Amino acid sequence: MEKIPVHTIHSFGFPLPVVLVGAEVNEKPACLTAAWAMPVESSPPMLAVALAPHHTTLGIDKHNEFSINVPGKNLAAETDFCGIVSGSRIDKSSLFTYFRGELEHAPMIQECPVTIECRVIKTVKVNRHTLYIGEAVNVYADSGRVKNGRLHGPDLDALLLSGTDRNYYAPGDFLAKGWSIGKTLMEKHTDGGQNHDR
Amino acid sequence: MEKIPVHTIHSFGFPLPVVLVGAEVNEKPACLTAAWAMPVESSPPMLAVALAPHHTTLGIDKHNEFSINVPGKNLAAETDFCGIVSGSRIDKSSLFTYFRGELEHAPMIQECPVTIECRVIKTVKVNRHTLYIGEAVNVYADSGRVKNGRLHGPDLDALLLSGTDRNYYAPGDFLAKGWSIGKTLMEKHTDGGQNHDR
Repeated sequence: MEKIPVHTIHSFGFPLPVVLVGAEVNEKPACLTAAWAMPVESSPPMLAVALAPHHTTLGIDKHNEFSINVPGKNLAAETDFCGIVSGSRIDKSSLFTYFRGELEHAPMIQECPVTIECRVIKTVKVNRHTLYIGEAVNVYADSGRVKNGRLHGPDLDALLLSGTDRNYYAPGDFLAKGWSIGKTLMEKHTDGGQNHDR
Repeated sequence: MEKIPVHTIHSFGFPLPVVLVGAEVNEKPACLTAAWAMPVESSPPMLAVALAPHHTTLGIDKHNEFSINVPGKNLAAETDFCGIVSGSRIDKSSLFTYFRGELEHAPMIQECPVTIECRVIKTVKVNRHTLYIGEAVNVYADSGRVKNGRLHGPDLDALLLSGTDRNYYAPGDFLAKGWSIGKTLMEKHTDGGQNHDR
C-alpha cells in the first residue's frame, strides 16, 4: 500500500451518489448539487447532507426544511449545471418543475424519480461545511419505482460521482445478494453457522 | 409522483457505496460493514460514518480512532459476511490481513484497494445511530490506484448497496464529464455564460 499525502486528497476512492438539495429562497425554489448525502437513521428515517454555505443553504437555514431529490441518469447535464452555477446569480427555478408535499418550504423536483421532504432536526458545524440532519417527512416516487405502495428496487437510476476523476458514472452490474453471499464464508470462519448473528 | 408511507422506508432510492469500518477491540482488529459513510469536509479532509452500537464501535468509543476501508468488487462475500456476523461472537481478525499506519488503534485492511486512518473529532448522537466524524490522518492505496504520488481514478472498484432490493451492484458505465456537461445548458439558462460562477 502506498501512502498518499492527505493534503492532495479530494476524494476517498469510492463513488458517491449525487442528489439535488432543494430549499426555498426568497419565496422561490432553489437547488444545489451534492454528493455528500446519506441516510443516518432508520427509525425514524433521517438523512444528512454536508454543505458549504451556498445560495440554497440560506433557505434551509431560514426555514429548517429541505428536500433531497434523486436525479435519474437522464438528468446528468441539469445536475451538473446546478453544481457549477450559483443560484445567487442564476435563477434556477425554471430549470425543473417543482412540487410541494406536506412541508411549506421544501420544494421537490418533479423530474427526479425519487424525492424526500425533510425537516431539519439538527445541524452540526464541521469546518467550512455544515451537516444538516433531516427527518424524512415523506418520500415520493415515480409510479415505476412503486409496487404495493412501497418503494421498489433496484436503485439503479442514479448518478454516481467518481470524485477522483470527477466524472459521472451509472450504477452497473449486479454483483451479489446482500445479507446472503456472506453466508458462503460461514463454514470457514465460524463453527459451521451454529453460532452467529444473522 | 406517489407518496410512500415513511414507516415503510429502509432506503431512499439511491445506491450507496459500502465500506468496512475498522477499529481495535480488546487489542484485536475488528471491523463492520457500513453503507452510511461519506466525506463531510474537504480542508482538512474528513469523513462521517453513522453506526448503531456494535462490537466494533466499542473500539472506536475507547480509542477515538477508526479506519475506513474501501472493498473492491472481489470482496463482496467478505464484506457481506462482516455485515451479518457480529464480532462479539466471531473473531473476524483472521478474515483479512491488517496493517497499521500512524495511528495506534486504527487497523486497516490490506486487501482493500483504498484505506483511510481517521481520528474522531466529533460524535453526534442521532437516535439509535451515532455519527462518528473523523479527520483523515492518512490515505493508503494499492499502487494501481496511485499515479505521481496521488490517488488516481476512476473510483470504480467498489461495492454499491442498492438498499431497496438489498443487493450489491458494481459502478458501471461512464455517463458524462463532471463540471463540464452542465455547461451545455449555459446558453439556455443564463445570459450565454457571461455571468456565472464556475
